[in-house]
This record gives sequence, C-alpha cells and structure tokens, in this order.
Amino acid sequence: MSVVYTHIRRAEPAVLEGLSRFGVATVHEAQGRTGLLGPALRPIYPGARIAGSAVTVSLPPADNWMIHVAVEQCQAGDVLVVAPTSYSDAGYFGELLASSLAARGVRGLIIDAGVRDVRDLTAMRFPVWSKAVYAQGTVKETLGSVNVPVVCAGGLVSPGDVVIADDDGVCIVAQADAAVVLKASEAREAKEAKTRERLARGELGLDIYDMREKLAKRGLVYRPLPPAE
Amino acid sequence: MSVVYTHIRRAEPAVLEGLSRFGVATVHEAQGRTGLLGPALRPIYPGARIAGSAVTVSLPPADNWMIHVAVEQCQAGDVLVVAPTSYSDAGYFGELLASSLAARGVRGLIIDAGVRDVRDLTAMRFPVWSKAVYAQGTVKETLGSVNVPVVCAGGLVSPGDVVIADDDGVCIVAQADAAVVLKASEAREAKEAKTRERLARGELGLDIYDMREKLAKRGLVYRPLPPAE
Amino acid sequence: MSVVYTHIRRAEPAVLEGLSRFGVATVHEAQGRTGLLGPALRPIYPGARIAGSAVTVSLPPADNWMIHVAVEQCQAGDVLVVAPTSYSDAGYFGELLASSLAARGVRGLIIDAGVRDVRDLTAMRFPVWSKAVYAQGTVKETLGSVNVPVVCAGGLVSPGDVVIADDDGVCIVAQADAAVVLKASEAREAKEAKTRERLARGELGLDIYDMREKLAKRGLVYRPLPPAE
Amino acid sequence: MSVVYTHIRRAEPAVLEGLSRFGVATVHEAQGRTGLLGPALRPIYPGARIAGSAVTVSLPPADNWMIHVAVEQCQAGDVLVVAPTSYSDAGYFGELLASSLAARGVRGLIIDAGVRDVRDLTAMRFPVWSKAVYAQGTVKETLGSVNVPVVCAGGLVSPGDVVIADDDGVCIVAQADAAVVLKASEAREAKEAKTRERLARGELGLDIYDMREKLAKRGLVYRPLPPAE
Amino acid sequence: MSVVYTHIRRAEPAVLEGLSRFGVATVHEAQGRTGLLGPALRPIYPGARIAGSAVTVSLPPADNWMIHVAVEQCQAGDVLVVAPTSYSDAGYFGELLASSLAARGVRGLIIDAGVRDVRDLTAMRFPVWSKAVYAQGTVKETLGSVNVPVVCAGGLVSPGDVVIADDDGVCIVAQADAAVVLKASEAREAKEAKTRERLARGELGLDIYDMREKLAKRGLVYRPLPPAE
Amino acid sequence: MSVVYTHIRRAEPAVLEGLSRFGVATVHEAQGRTGLLGPALRPIYPGARIAGSAVTVSLPPADNWMIHVAVEQCQAGDVLVVAPTSYSDAGYFGELLASSLAARGVRGLIIDAGVRDVRDLTAMRFPVWSKAVYAQGTVKETLGSVNVPVVCAGGLVSPGDVVIADDDGVCIVAQADAAVVLKASEAREAKEAKTRERLARGELGLDIYDMREKLAKRGLVYRPLPPAE
Repeated sequence: MSVVYTHIRRAEPAVLEGLSRFGVATVHEAQGRTGLLGPALRPIYPGARIAGSAVTVSLPPADNWMIHVAVEQCQAGDVLVVAPTSYSDAGYFGELLASSLAARGVRGLIIDAGVRDVRDLTAMRFPVWSKAVYAQGTVKETLGSVNVPVVCAGGLVSPGDVVIADDDGVCIVAQADAAVVLKASEAREAKEAKTRERLARGELGLDIYDMREKLAKRGLVYRPLPPAE
Repeated sequence: MSVVYTHIRRAEPAVLEGLSRFGVATVHEAQGRTGLLGPALRPIYPGARIAGSAVTVSLPPADNWMIHVAVEQCQAGDVLVVAPTSYSDAGYFGELLASSLAARGVRGLIIDAGVRDVRDLTAMRFPVWSKAVYAQGTVKETLGSVNVPVVCAGGLVSPGDVVIADDDGVCIVAQADAAVVLKASEAREAKEAKTRERLARGELGLDIYDMREKLAKRGLVYRPLPPAE
Repeated sequence: MSVVYTHIRRAEPAVLEGLSRFGVATVHEAQGRTGLLGPALRPIYPGARIAGSAVTVSLPPADNWMIHVAVEQCQAGDVLVVAPTSYSDAGYFGELLASSLAARGVRGLIIDAGVRDVRDLTAMRFPVWSKAVYAQGTVKETLGSVNVPVVCAGGLVSPGDVVIADDDGVCIVAQADAAVVLKASEAREAKEAKTRERLARGELGLDIYDMREKLAKRGLVYRPLPPAE
Repeated sequence: MSVVYTHIRRAEPAVLEGLSRFGVATVHEAQGRTGLLGPALRPIYPGARIAGSAVTVSLPPADNWMIHVAVEQCQAGDVLVVAPTSYSDAGYFGELLASSLAARGVRGLIIDAGVRDVRDLTAMRFPVWSKAVYAQGTVKETLGSVNVPVVCAGGLVSPGDVVIADDDGVCIVAQADAAVVLKASEAREAKEAKTRERLARGELGLDIYDMREKLAKRGLVYRPLPPAE
Repeated sequence: MSVVYTHIRRAEPAVLEGLSRFGVATVHEAQGRTGLLGPALRPIYPGARIAGSAVTVSLPPADNWMIHVAVEQCQAGDVLVVAPTSYSDAGYFGELLASSLAARGVRGLIIDAGVRDVRDLTAMRFPVWSKAVYAQGTVKETLGSVNVPVVCAGGLVSPGDVVIADDDGVCIVAQADAAVVLKASEAREAKEAKTRERLARGELGLDIYDMREKLAKRGLVYRPLPPAE
Repeated sequence: MSVVYTHIRRAEPAVLEGLSRFGVATVHEAQGRTGLLGPALRPIYPGARIAGSAVTVSLPPADNWMIHVAVEQCQAGDVLVVAPTSYSDAGYFGELLASSLAARGVRGLIIDAGVRDVRDLTAMRFPVWSKAVYAQGTVKETLGSVNVPVVCAGGLVSPGDVVIADDDGVCIVAQADAAVVLKASEAREAKEAKTRERLARGELGLDIYDMREKLAKRGLVYRPLPPAE
C-alpha cells in the first residue's frame, strides 16, 4: 500500500523556464481556467514566483516521515507537493528540510498543511505555499506514498506535473500539456499587453471588448440617480 | 432589474482630503462606532491609506461583467466597492482592470470576494481590500447593478458614501455626515495626542481616565498572588 | 469574582534572555512538544521575536477595561496575554495602550481577539500576536481579572509563565521549567547545527537519521513509475 | 444615538398569511433572487416555516439588553430580527425571552449570533434561526437601537419588512413589495407544479426547458467514455 | 512524559444527580458565567442531557491509542473528555469504543475532534459532543496521557471535574465547587420559574427587571418611526 | 473543452447491493483508509445510507445548467456527484431536480456546494450530502462537463466509481476495486462483531488487542493521582 515511485517523467527544462515567466493567473486562463489549487494556500513571504516539476507526497495527518523519504526523489528544478490524507495544520516542514531540498536544487514546497521556521525560510529565500504557519511538531511513525497522484487543497496533482506558484496561489499544468500551455500563455500575454496599453491611455473595457450592445440586449438600463433617498 | 445609476453625488474634495489624514479606527470612533465593514477584508499589501467616494457594484458570484460597466461611472477620487450577491472567492479583478481604474484616478478597490495579479497590483501601488487572493477566473454572462446600495462584508454602502481604508480595514461614512465626522475626527485626534504624550511619559490610563473609583465600586479587588498553587 | 493578583513571580532575566535567542519551534520541541498556543494567533508584522513574563488578563467579549487595569501590573520584560471569555474579534488594543506598555518596557502583546492601529504599532515596532485585525471599538463596562490562569487560543497561560513568540506563533513555558527548557533548547540547537551542515552538503535525512531499515520493516517499497496512465 | 422607533408600519395580515404558504426558495426566486440572508443562519430544529413583520434590533456584541427593550415593540405576527454590531456567538436569547415573545404572539427569532436553551425552545416550538448555539451569557450594559435598518447575516433588514424563514434559511421582502411578491410566488408555484408533474413522469428538463439547442450552440459535445485509463 | 493517573477523586453521586437536572445554560450562569467549552462542540443527536465526572485524555492528532488506555480508568457515572494536542477532525471514536464505555456505565463522550458510526451511536443512545463527524481512521502509534488537565475546545478540564452537557453545549464545574454550584443552580432555577410565569402572562422584562429608569439615564429615546424614507 | 461522456461503466448491481449494507467507516477502513470525501459534506437529514455508481458533474460556481444535462446520463442505481470549479454555497439543487432524478431511480446527490428545498427533499426521502443549505438561486449560462474525473470535497471521484454515503459522510471506491472492497468489508464486519460482543461483556480493548506490553515498551507509566494541587 505504501510505495515510492521512482524515475518519474518531467517536463522539458525549457518549458519550465518559459512557464516561470508567467504568473499563476495567466497560466490558469491559458489552459482554460483549470488546474488551480484552493485559495487556502498562501505564500509565507511575498514576491516569489516559481515553476517546477511536482514530486508528490501523500502522508498521514501530523506525520512527516514521508517527506524525508521524498527528498531523495527530488532533483534540481522540482517542487515538492505534500498532501495529508486528513486535515492537519501541524508544522510538517522547517529549515532543516529546506536546507536539504535547497541542496538538491528544489525550487519550493506546496503543502496542504502547516510549516514552521518561516523566519529562517524567508531568510533562505526558500519559498513555501502552505495552509498554515504553526510550530506544532509532527511524528515519524506511519508510512505514506511518494509520487502517487494526490489531492492538494482541492486540486489533483500527479507526479511530473508542472507546478506554477506566485502571490496569487498555485496552478498545476499536466506534463503532457505543458508545451501547449506555454504557447497559449505567451499568446495571452501578448494580447493583454496591447489591451493594457489602451486601458492605461483611458480607453474603456466596454469599448475595447465591444460589450455595450450585448449589455443592452440583456436589458441593462442607465438612469440618473434619483434625488433625496 | 439591472440598472446603472449615473451622476451620483459625492462628498466635497476638501472633506475627502481631510478624512484621508485619519485612520479607520479614528473615523469609526468619531462617528459613534458605526460604519465598519467586516474583518475579512484585508489589504493586499501593508501601508496604504485612502479616502474616496464609493461607486458601488452588485454582481453575481464569479461574474465580473459589471465591474467593466462600473469603470465608466468612476472619476478621480472614487473608490470602487464590489459585492457579489452570494459568497465567492473567485478572482474578479486583476491588473488590467486596475490599469483602467488608475487611468481614471480611482484610489482603490474594496471587494467582498477575491482578486488576482497581486504582485502587479502591489508594484503599481493600486490598493485593494479583499476577502481572498485567488487566481480563479470569472465569466461575463449575467447582469448586476451599479450605484445601488450594497451590503459589503456585512456593512451597508450607498453610492457616494465616503470610504476610508487602511491596514485596520474599511470604514464607511455616509456622504451627508462626512463634514461632521471630519470635525469629530479632528477633535478626537487632538485629544488623543495629549493622552499619547502623557502615556508615553509613563502616566497610567487608570489615572488619566480616572477609572480607579469606578472599578472599586464595581467590586474589583487587589490581592497578592498566593504562593505555591 | 474579579481580582487583580499583584506581585507575581517571574523567571530569571538571564533565562528570559537565553530563551529569546531561540524560536518558538525550537522551544516547543525542547519541552516535549507542549505549550503552543493555536495557529490563529498571527504577528501583525513579520520578523519580531520576543521572550518575556506573562501578565494575564481574562475579560469579557468586546470590553477592554481590564487591559487598562493590567498595564499597572506590568514591568520591564513582561508580555501581556489577553483572553476574552467568549469569542471576539473586536479591536481591544491600539497605539495608545501600546504607548503605555512601551513606556513600562513591556515587550509585546498576545491577544486571542482583534487589535487596531496596526500601521502605528508597526511603526513603533511594538509586536502583537492576534487573531484578527479589526477597528471595531470596545466598551469599558464589565470587570474581569488580572493574573489568573487563562486559556488563550486553546493553550493554558499562568501569570509569570514565559512567553516566546515569533513568526511561527506563540509558545508558553511554565516558569518553574524555564531554566531546564533553556538548557534543552541549547542542546537541541547545537545538535541541529551539525545536522544542518550535513544536509546543506547534500547528505540525506534518510541516512543521517538512519531511517532506511525502519521504513523497509514497515513495508515501504520502491518501484519505477509505470508508463502510460 | 440610541433610539427606539415605535409605531412601525407592517404588511397586511392577508399578505403575510399568503407568503407563509411558500418556502424561502420560492419567495427568493419570485422577487428576482434578492433578499436572502446568509447561509450561516440555521434553524434550531427542522420543519418550522414562518412569515411575519420584522422588528429589528441593533445591539453591541455579547449584550442583550436591547432585546428586552424590543419585546415591548412586538405584536402578534411579528418576527424579531437581532444583529450585533460586531461578531458574536454568545447566547443572547433563551426560553425566558421566548416565553415573553410567545405571550405577545411573536412568530420567531432571527439572530446573527448565538442562542441557548434550545431544548426548551424546541419543546415550546418557538422557532429560531441563528448562527450558533452557545450557552455563553451576555451582559446588560450598553444601549443599541430598535427598529433601525440592520445588516443581519449579510442582508439588509428594515423594520416592517416581511421575514420568511424555513429550513432553507431566511428571506426578506420589503414591505412595499410584499403584495407583488406574493402574486409572483403564486404564479411561480403554479408553474412549478406543472413542471414537477412532467419531471415525475420521467420527462427531462433538457426537453421541458428546451435547452438542447442552446447547449449545442455553446459548444457542448457528447462522446462515449474512452476505454482503459 | 506519558502518564496514566489512576484513582482520581470524583464528586458525590448525589451532587452529580442533582446537577443533571439542570441544563448547561443554568449551571454556567449559576457559577458566574465560567466553565463553558467552545461552541464548536455539538451533540451528534438532539435531546441528550448528562452530568458526570471527567476522565481526561490528552493525545496526538489522529491517534486514538490513549482512548483504549483511558477506558480502563472509567467507572459508572464518568464522562470521557478527549483533547488532541493539535487540531484534528479525524474520527477517533466509534461504536466499538462506545460499547466498551457503555459496558462500564460511562455516560458520554466529549471530544475536541471527530467521531464516526454516528448512526450506531444514536441507535445505542450513547451521547457524544464533538467538533466533527468524520469517518477518517486514526492510528495507534504515539502515547499521550490520561487524567492530566487538558484544554478542550478552549476550556480547561481537570480529571474529576463535573461535566454537564446538553443541546446548548458543554460546561465544566470544578469538583470542589460542585455542591455549591448545585445550590446556586437550584436557587437560580427557582427564581426563573417565577419570572417565567410572569412573562408567560404577558408582563414585560422591562418592568419585572425594573430597567426603564436605567435605560433612560443611559440616554435611550423613543420616537415614532418617521414616514417615507 | 465541455464534454458529456456517455455509456460509462458501472460496478455490478450485486456488488453495489452488498456494499450498501456497510457504513462509510467500515468501507473506508476495508480499503486501507482511503477514498473519503471531506467532513464538510453533511446529510440534509439523518439516517440515510446509500451505495451507487457515480455520475460526475464539473460545473462553474453558482451555475447549475450542467445538472440538467447530467440527469439524462443517470440510470437506476446511480448517485449524482457535483463539484463546482470554485467555491460556492449557492443552492444548485432543489425538489424539481430531485423529482427528475427520483423518476430515473437515482439514489441520491453528493454536492460540494449548497442545496435548497430541504423540507421537500426530506419529505420525499431523497438523500443529499452537501456543504451548505442555502436558497440562493443559480444561473444557466456557462458549460461544464459530465462524467469527467472531479475533485469533490477534497477527494477524487471518477465516473462509475462506487459512492457510499451515510451519517458519517461519503466514501468513494474505485469501480475496479469494488468487489475486493466488498469482501474486505464483510471480513472486517465479521471480525468486529466478535470484538463488539466481547467489549459489551466488559472486556477491555487493552486486552483484546493485546496492547499492554507495547504501551509499556513505549514508556507509558501508571501513577495514582497526587493529592492537593
């Protein structure tokens, strides 16, 4: 029942590199508004933006043993994705584990639970997206699995999926779709750059997106605000 | 049913200017502890403080069409106040809409839902108070209304009301009361300045506010802590 | 029923000083994973780390009268710990009270409720760990007690206990145990320093902690990821 | 600042009577999907359904003094609507107050806070919709107001508004609209009765509502589930 | 560190018997509004009311081993009180453990976590107050302690304390105070019986409690509701 | 992007029948403590227990159009599983849709959102497990998909999976594993029946499960409770 899958497949480094230039919102839109993990995942410090390959960990509540097992499966460019099988806000992860991951070139941690040592993690610039910050310790008693599909903060993550994370949250791109989503992200960004320029000059979205007729058809009316109240 | 009210009345610029010098806590106290929106509204970055006139938007969950409509109703010195008719943490608002509002001189956004592109919004210094940060996209399918009274984070906001927001949250002042509340805020601040000085010198609130007798009457007793336990 | 206990006992200044060098996670582990207050308590700004003696306040919801009473019981090196008897997110505490506490050398506030004026508190560098930031005012109508044992964010705090707080949350050390916990924290930190060095060099926790055999005994298996899916 | 408005206007008894035959969902739809209070309000026992005129109370957190004041303003057919000015889950209301309201013919209580004595209230069949059940007592120290507009569970309630409540929650109908909404509710119910019959016979909503073409136009495709995976 | 304390002291059976006749709200008031556990604890079925002596269990998150240990320490008239050291909603307890406790005459379970088999527990009429209902299994790997003081749902419970529970929640009475609190509960109930009768006859609390003068002094004014708006 | 997969495979009726005899807790344990959906899903009335084949629906927040589409894909013995792509507590489902599903022999609804008409649904005995009860209406504007894998309340559900639901929550069994899990459930139940009998006779789990030695080895000590304190 407890398995570590080794030798997972990963997206091309160039594709990861490309996706890391776009934010979560852009990638999420570019792949048809799918792949977001839930809003409970928040970065421990502002400003980080990463893209990497998911190494996934399914583990019991308040037991971080399998994270130690997972470290060995990580390589440069990976992102560790940790999901307990039941709700937990315990602090599964701190600066010792971060030192270990950083030594292997891991780009960050996504955890549907708590972390601790956030002052040290911030100083190290090791980015973490977590549901809680909490010093509560965990045990090392019960097995889980590494590189199985996990549900993390309400979204599905498979090993080798591309993880994009920034201040807006975390988005998952299936490995097989990564190159296509990169293209779509580039296209979207190019189009938005033009819109941004027009909006900044004072043009209205109502006109740029040609909304006025559709709004009127649906029945929107304009009236001066009645006096008094 | 779906209406955009135009030509709303706004408070005097000088009054807005005056109120922007005080924080939310001061204004809230100065108007008799009323007008606060709920504590779920948090700024996306620390340090912003704004005062402006509310342009209000009532819209369906996960549908941001009416924000595009509302932009046209905004002018310099306004604050956009957005309230879905049912709970939503979707990301209704990002840097494109912020560019559009900034181009019109809008001072910020209050939204009882989610926003995205917070890294860009922070870089632009476009302040937002929201219930969530989440990249989840919205649709443009269903109408709502602009410049109707809305309930936002548990508080009532009417178009043209004065919106005060800072790191403590968001407070609403009715347009008709704004000049009076400004006076009361100035008076309160002046009085607190004196108290602050005395407290900083080490005087006790117990003495400054003359509380000792009232406390004793109510039955407060002082005892040395018993040993052991 | 309403009592202010005076002349509480406090831990040795040298012990406080020593404990202030360690973070919450270290001290919590060093005393056997006990003493943490709940994760709802968050610092109002990042980076503060304090250790001090608890002056405790039990008070009614949305009534901050007893905080004014408690100020007088505080001395340099203390930390004020405030717990309402029923849930409240009102703003019990702002910069005036902070000025008063700072004038007495108090190191910070732990409050299982809301605070306000966080912009000013941040500018003053007066650290607060609270459950909410909210400008909602409180009244001064009903008594409570000072220096009684309180339950704060799910943990028990007695007057004179040592309070450790940093970005990870808040940990309580019983006064009688403080010297022993300081020793244990030093020992833990020394041991972790060595582990940290080995991990940073790329050694694995699996080997450092000698986990491989125990994992295999429990039934962990390694397999290459099957193709396709 | 603290006022009791007396002699409020109420909807016609026949209109109240009529609306009491419909559930919250029907009335909410019949008035254009407006007027719902938030889903946190739950009945203390299943099966109650009421319609009545709102007597509103705005009061401080954890202080139930104004409920005693409000009782006198209630008459047969009324529903008491209680909203604290800040979050509270304290138990503002129990069987003594219920006895008093029942003696005046009041039909129920809507409270954006806690209640207690629910075993007795259930035995008396005095229906309550509340955010919490909690025995925590309240004080009688601070004034509020009666029959002012209040925001209750995120919705606006004015004195004399019609309150509809059942197992689905609570819906507010403005007094001036009550007769029209009653008509619309009757029409909606009549139409649904026919649909219900057709659905119960096995006809599909896809056909009854003529959805197939619209779905196809939007791009919906049907495919047999691929094998394997 | 892990201890089972045996031979705890318990309140007199006659006192327990007496207290079981009063509800949580009455006992909580009778002992000065103290002793309530938090409102997150809800009964798994309505109508149960118990009073018994606390056997307390402190245990790790998602590990129910110590409950098996605690069963042996229970005797007829006891109530088991279980508190994890970190948040957990796992299902620590089901019908097998309930059969075991019922065989010993235990009156119910208070648990700051989840339970399962609630259909069976309801059929057995074994009452439970819990924070969650969830089938998630727990492990038996890590020790805790029995009959140490625990913080359960934000309240302190010591072994041998009297536990009162009903549909309003859970209240704790210190063993030493139990006889006094019983007296106070009887007195309160007798007084309320008279008030209840007067209220049911239509007298107002305003008059019975003599509130009118105090309200006027505080500044309450009565006004007819202004027309229009 | 929006697809309805037809002709999904389902588990054998005899297997469904068999699994319907066991509760969620038993099945969850029998398949190795996997497959549970989150504890936020609660039954709208107590006592229902179902097993059926999942027809899954992925749809936008506050838009129930795809439920109408999904009805056509349902057959006798199915359970509808509905998951919005972003948080919503709107009322997607009421008695009209229930009439339609009941006419096709569908056994119940699992929805990670809100439902309404719960009084009628209860009267019809159409069981629903939902995250909220709320009358808020939804629109029919945006497509989703039917019979794709969905994440519902934190768990993965694929079309044709077996859904088990009772008062403890909801558990998912992969279709391919259903026969094996049925066997394991029968075995577990048989074993528990014997244990139940022994526990009911007063034997202790400590002895039945042979725990005493293991506890002692881990370091558990027994001591009489010290006097005083």
